[in-house]
Parts: sequence; C-alpha cells; structure tokens
Amino acid sequence: MPARQSFTDLKNLVLCDIGNTHIHFAQNYQLFSSAKEDLKRLGIQKEIFYISVNEENEKALLNCYPNAKNIAGFFHLETDYIGLGIDRQMACLAVNNGVVVDAGSAITIDLVKEGKHLGGCILPGLAQYIHAYKKSAKILEQPFKTLDSLEILPKNTRDAVNYGMILSVISCIQHLAKNQKIYLCGGDAKYLSAFLPHSVCKERLVFDGMEIALKKAGILECK
Amino acid sequence: MPARQSFTDLKNLVLCDIGNTHIHFAQNYQLFSSAKEDLKRLGIQKEIFYISVNEENEKALLNCYPNAKNIAGFFHLETDYIGLGIDRQMACLAVNNGVVVDAGSAITIDLVKEGKHLGGCILPGLAQYIHAYKKSAKILEQPFKTLDSLEILPKNTRDAVNYGMILSVISCIQHLAKNQKIYLCGGDAKYLSAFLPHSVCKERLVFDGMEIALKKAGILECK
Repeated sequence: MPARQSFTDLKNLVLCDIGNTHIHFAQNYQLFSSAKEDLKRLGIQKEIFYISVNEENEKALLNCYPNAKNIAGFFHLETDYIGLGIDRQMACLAVNNGVVVDAGSAITIDLVKEGKHLGGCILPGLAQYIHAYKKSAKILEQPFKTLDSLEILPKNTRDAVNYGMILSVISCIQHLAKNQKIYLCGGDAKYLSAFLPHSVCKERLVFDGMEIALKKAGILECK
Repeated sequence: MPARQSFTDLKNLVLCDIGNTHIHFAQNYQLFSSAKEDLKRLGIQKEIFYISVNEENEKALLNCYPNAKNIAGFFHLETDYIGLGIDRQMACLAVNNGVVVDAGSAITIDLVKEGKHLGGCILPGLAQYIHAYKKSAKILEQPFKTLDSLEILPKNTRDAVNYGMILSVISCIQHLAKNQKIYLCGGDAKYLSAFLPHSVCKERLVFDGMEIALKKAGILECK
C-alpha cells in the first residue's frame, strides 16, 4: 500500500456515504445530505473519504471533488455473505454484538456476533411497499399513515395496509433479534425504533464504521 | 325477501368466488378456477350462487350465466371493520375462533373470536413483493426462490430477499395469532403453511363460509 497522509483528528476530514438516492456526509459531528446535482454547492475544502453503492452518484462526487478517496479496500469485515453492500459492512463494523437495521430505500437486517457478520436479510423500504400494495389491488394503494401503536387491530383498509406493513417489518426484526440489542440507522430508523423496545437509533452508525476502518488503516490516529 | 328456491343438497348448485385475477368455483366437492374469457367454456348447467370483489369479472360471469345470484346480502358477519371484502367476510364466517389468512394477490390476516371479527391487516401478495423490491434497488429484483426453512441466515442477495419476504409475512401472522389456530386459504396457503406450526390449509374456506350463509338464508337445507 502506498504511504498515505495521516490525520490526527476526525475534524480534519469529511466522511461520505454514497447511497442510491442521497449522498450523506459527516463533517466532524455534523451530518448532512445532498442530491448529486447539489454537490458543488457544498464547497467542501477538507479531504473526503467515501464509500459507495451507486456508481452514478460516485461519478458525480468525483467530478466535483476529484481527490475524494474510496476506502472500501482499507478494511475487512469477517463474513461468509457474498455481495454484502459496503454500507452494510461499515454499519456492522461499528457493532460488536447485536442486530444492525438500516432502514432506507431498502431495509437491511444483519446479525453480528463477536465482530463476525452471521448473515442477514432484506425487506423493501417503507416508502417502496406502496408499489407492492398497488399491484396487489388498486384499493390497497393507500397513503402512508404514521401509527402510534400496534395494540389496536385495524378496522378499515387504510389502517389495515399501514399496520400490516409496520407489523411485518417490526416482527421480522424482533424474530431475528430475540433478546439482542437492535441498532437502527437510515431515514426510517426513528419511526421504527418507537415500536422496538430493545433498540437504539444510531444515525451515525455507517460513519462510526468508517471511522473504525480509517483507524485500522492508520489514516486516522487512534486516541 | 321474496320466496326463493330451496336446495336439498350442495350437489344441486355451484358456488362461485369472483376475485381480482381469477374466478373460483366449487361444484359439489370439486374446485376449479377460470379466467373471465373462459367462463362460457365451463358450460355450467346448475344454478350459480356467487360473491365478488371485482366488478368487471362479475359482469363477465353474468354475461355468460345471467341467472347467477349474488349472495352478499344474504348473511351478516359481526364486525366493526368498515369495507371488509366479501371474500374475507365469508372466510371468517367459516371460523368460530382463530386467525384467517387468505394468501392470494394480497395477503389478508383476520382475527375471529367466538364468531365475531375483531379486525385484521393486509400485506402485499408474495408475487407482488417483487415490485417493492425493484423500487428499493435494481439489484433487489430477484427471482422467487422457495425456501425449505428459515433456520439458516441468508448469505447472498437472492436468499436475503426471499428470506426477508417470507420471514416478515410469517412473523406477522405468528405475532397476531399467538397460540390461536391459523386457517390458511388462497394460492400461497400451502407454501406459507409449511412455516407455521399451528396452521391448517383450508382450500375451501371461502366456500365453507358461503355454504353457511346459504344455510342461514334457508336457500340450502341444513342436514
């Protein structure tokens, strides 16, 4: 590996997680997101270290910030899973024992035991369920309704659709988690977390993993 | 109510359940289905009693068999649910205590206690999940794969998608059922039943409900 610049503090660099819809950044402890069209406007001066699951958005980042560095090769997550997304790998790297849920445009559920990734499964993103309901029957294309609780059984179509979607996602996570701690990240983390007693929202989970990876690679100094 | 012909035996009439995709029939103890284009070819001679959730398919039936009778008005299911599909009502009418799952182009899950419908929820049909996955990310549009068990955690994208879909449906049903008996009908009933220990497949469930309704209305003689 070539000699690389080393940073004494997270403050001196910018972390970037390139997703399928948005591009997420962590600058020190500030989090912000951008569409690929707005990247230039961000005017980032510091060195960018990134991961990406979307080639097109990655190109857009490199177009604006040609020195940004992909850190996918700088770390290793122990797993037998073939094709595990780099964002899922980073989130799992930040958890030693527990269940990692990334609830974004898809919902990924991964199990980690003593730092080893044991496997995981994928559900559609909450906003994407509408397409499956619409194809099931026209009347099932219902507007999203936030639920306060799953205690009361639905008594109309709109509630029945929203309840089914949330209960199936929640009970799937709980079935896999059993009594383990649940770590949630992604846009729907906060909403889902309210239904999961043993869970914590960790907005920075992917960035926490990136920080660990940079430390292991010696790019960021361990304090 | 006008005087109606009374039948001594189920053998003397044909039951019909008009769905969104197919039109299902029960002739004595034989079950068969038809697309609306093929109805004429069936050449049914006996009197038809039907329920319908699809206006277009209903018109097609009446076009071929103008004497067919809609029995929706002939019965009552105790419920506070507004807009409960007539097929769900009929399936629930056939169960006194338990959970009724109709796994077709949508998956409906309904709870019945001492003959009263307590409420229920709706999930997309298994075949319809593909549309939600596709919208979540292109790579998640995976072909359906039948799973033998949910014991082994997925270690690739195709398994992760199929496992997530099945586990979320199964764990949702189990969460609602607790220790109650689960009655499954619809095209995917047999497949789902294999993952649900306290379940029975009842292919005729909707027709059993229709038979009860006809008996209560005095159209079919009680033996």
